[in-house]
Amino acid sequence: MNFVSIQLDSSSNEPLYLQLFSKIKEAILSDELIIGYRLPAIRRLAKDLSVNNVTVINAYKQLESSGYVTSKKGSGFYVTKPNTPEISLMTLPPTTIKENCINFSSASPHPAIFPTDSFKYCLDEVIDRDKGFAFGYQEANGFMPLREILAEYLEKTHRIHTSPSHIQIVSGAQQGIDIIAKSCLNAGDYVVTETPTYNGATDAFKSRSSRIVTVELTPFGIDLIEFEKKVNVCKPKLVYVMTKFQNPTTLCYAPYTLKQLLALAEKYNFYLVEDDSTSELSYTDRAPYSLKAFDTQDRVIYIKSFSKLLMPGLRIGFLVIPDALLDRFTKTKQMTDIASSGLIHRSLDLFFRTHKWEEHLSYMKAIYSGKYELMLSQLENLKALGVTFNIPNGGLCFWLKLPKGLSAYKLYERCLESGLLILPSTLFYSTMHKERDHYIRLSFAPCDAKEIVEGIAILEKCIKKGLS
Amino acid sequence: MNFVSIQLDSSSNEPLYLQLFSKIKEAILSDELIIGYRLPAIRRLAKDLSVNNVTVINAYKQLESSGYVTSKKGSGFYVTKPNTPEISLMTLPPTTIKENCINFSSASPHPAIFPTDSFKYCLDEVIDRDKGFAFGYQEANGFMPLREILAEYLEKTHRIHTSPSHIQIVSGAQQGIDIIAKSCLNAGDYVVTETPTYNGATDAFKSRSSRIVTVELTPFGIDLIEFEKKVNVCKPKLVYVMTKFQNPTTLCYAPYTLKQLLALAEKYNFYLVEDDSTSELSYTDRAPYSLKAFDTQDRVIYIKSFSKLLMPGLRIGFLVIPDALLDRFTKTKQMTDIASSGLIHRSLDLFFRTHKWEEHLSYMKAIYSGKYELMLSQLENLKALGVTFNIPNGGLCFWLKLPKGLSAYKLYERCLESGLLILPSTLFYSTMHKERDHYIRLSFAPCDAKEIVEGIAILEKCIKKGLS
Repeated sequence: MNFVSIQLDSSSNEPLYLQLFSKIKEAILSDELIIGYRLPAIRRLAKDLSVNNVTVINAYKQLESSGYVTSKKGSGFYVTKPNTPEISLMTLPPTTIKENCINFSSASPHPAIFPTDSFKYCLDEVIDRDKGFAFGYQEANGFMPLREILAEYLEKTHRIHTSPSHIQIVSGAQQGIDIIAKSCLNAGDYVVTETPTYNGATDAFKSRSSRIVTVELTPFGIDLIEFEKKVNVCKPKLVYVMTKFQNPTTLCYAPYTLKQLLALAEKYNFYLVEDDSTSELSYTDRAPYSLKAFDTQDRVIYIKSFSKLLMPGLRIGFLVIPDALLDRFTKTKQMTDIASSGLIHRSLDLFFRTHKWEEHLSYMKAIYSGKYELMLSQLENLKALGVTFNIPNGGLCFWLKLPKGLSAYKLYERCLESGLLILPSTLFYSTMHKERDHYIRLSFAPCDAKEIVEGIAILEKCIKKGLS
Repeated sequence: MNFVSIQLDSSSNEPLYLQLFSKIKEAILSDELIIGYRLPAIRRLAKDLSVNNVTVINAYKQLESSGYVTSKKGSGFYVTKPNTPEISLMTLPPTTIKENCINFSSASPHPAIFPTDSFKYCLDEVIDRDKGFAFGYQEANGFMPLREILAEYLEKTHRIHTSPSHIQIVSGAQQGIDIIAKSCLNAGDYVVTETPTYNGATDAFKSRSSRIVTVELTPFGIDLIEFEKKVNVCKPKLVYVMTKFQNPTTLCYAPYTLKQLLALAEKYNFYLVEDDSTSELSYTDRAPYSLKAFDTQDRVIYIKSFSKLLMPGLRIGFLVIPDALLDRFTKTKQMTDIASSGLIHRSLDLFFRTHKWEEHLSYMKAIYSGKYELMLSQLENLKALGVTFNIPNGGLCFWLKLPKGLSAYKLYERCLESGLLILPSTLFYSTMHKERDHYIRLSFAPCDAKEIVEGIAILEKCIKKGLS
């Protein structure tokens, strides 16, 4: 942006400082000024534009209070507002991935293993049973029988105690996050997330003009010491965590960390958001612990996705909402899309009631644990090259730390040329983080055995090339 | 709110003005301080709280720049930020309406006339044809063949020229509005709407902390003189209009008004949002004019809903997006829910391609025009009581002006007691408008002939009782 050429109109009704505010705001929103850019010094810009210093000060303060810039004492004003949100490769549709490429990037199952026939059966049964009512407006929070059976399911398998009236059916976890953001966040509010984290969540939080504060992960979950320090200063409204097979690090939280988080939520008066997409996929006898299961003070908003476990195209998931927030969430859902498709609610309800969900889940677990073991065994070969990784014992991914000096993004590009799609850690970290180019995420979800073996071989070659 | 009892903590890290800002903000968001409330005078509050005047000034300015209050010269600061959005009765689920009540409030068809069987046929065909891919992730903007056939449809029947790449499939018109709001509005931006208007739209705009400016309607559409005056001052980002069978007034815009609006959009650099839910339902030979059809400068975001014409529970509609906004809208859709359900996209595509849409539309038009004529004939009886109304020649509703001295809200309550549900105009106006309690909206969509005749008879009795 060429600040000297900014045109202000002194004959306009609009004060000069607001005109200047708008011009800089537009430049930030249109990507012309990027995050971290330092605005010109106040006196210099005032001189260049032939306006009073106060005009520039007021414009900068307006930008600051609107969340577009932040001031550092003695150093000036820096752009903080994200322009257009970065979109993750994970949300790219499969059609944009070139053919014959081995895909370690998507954590969605291959369409060939979807329970297509049994779901079709449920759709047909529902339409025959409910006729036109299957296509009418649904209650904003969703079809009640489905909410009832989901409450039972949570109790039985996740030790989460809730009632159907506290469940809201949403069109997938991403919509759940969007609804949470709209219900809980106003401009300038703080949100704490893990780092690295899922950028689809931070995008939704940022779209509310809220500010993101990140906290490092330890092997037991979020770093509690750093966390409390930051929470004490920024007084967040929300804390967003993935406690089970965290995305992308594959870590599971220790019970101690979960309980401490809940105690801190009481102490500092924030809500915790627990995003759970794959906790059912544990390949050992020990299932990971759920934050919501320990939540005696009703401080946790729980998100369950079915995209990874069932079929992403159904666009269905659900929230468990604390009692104090229930009314607000219902209104937000109505304002967002009135309600999700009742036909899908009713069909999923029947899918659960006819025990097809249980059958499907055991089938998926059998398939996935085989792929998991295979990829794990292949990854052993990479250790000699200096690659290290956590053993997740569940989920759909591995998170690999690369040997020193190797750029994750460059490795991603090199693999792509060789016909392998991986996700570089740059997608999961903010632009400033020192570790942002050191990791890659590999998913085995959409691949068959042959692809897993071939893909790791390509990866090995590319790492070797990068090191040489 | 008792301002005198506000507690500020001078030992905190947080500046006093930010503490004060937060307390007043919370009071506004929690409904304690309502729109139009005048904040205490600066000096008085500073004295009461034993703080410097500047602390109060800074807190008030922060509230102003965040859109929670507005200042009037020489008069003080007034609350402008809406608290929790009002939710329209229209969005209430059918289950909350008591049984045996005649329902003139919902503009949705009765589930008995949904094309259930033919849609089931399409669902089954699609699953057999596409197998698992029918349940996979869809491209963010939707299934391309559906976008192609919708572009053809617009060209043929609405004289709207666009390309499939400018169409985005959304989960109903409400989600379309939400996506527009998120893509185009930041805190403090202005939006112009008609008054009265659909409150589901204003709720979505307000949720972005934008400010709403309303303009009266004339028989030819929005009042262009008042409109330009206001636009000149507030420089809106968006102007939201329903040009065809406007909700709730049933008015259609004259071509002159449409063309003037487009010229003003160029002059003042805003985008027009045209929300079209029922334009297909014209009961004369002359179809109403579409703003988008005249849009040579790519200034119109067009929203098409299928909820009123097909089945609301499908949750499907689409946007036509100006080229300059396309990338932004795609990203917003991904951030909102990644994509809508591909199964529904594919089935609707087949529904169009097998000419079921045309058949269904003629069937709906035949049914609705019969109900329209019947309600119109019954309404004649009310004229003697001083009721007046526009003759819409299309759509699903009538908009009745009540005789002087009769409260729409009280009439709504009286009708409800007598087993009839109507919509009072209070739902469509802001709280300050002088006409807000003078009209009612009646829809014939979900009723059969007997209910229409009985319902109007109940209404007549209740009006008479109100006048006596």
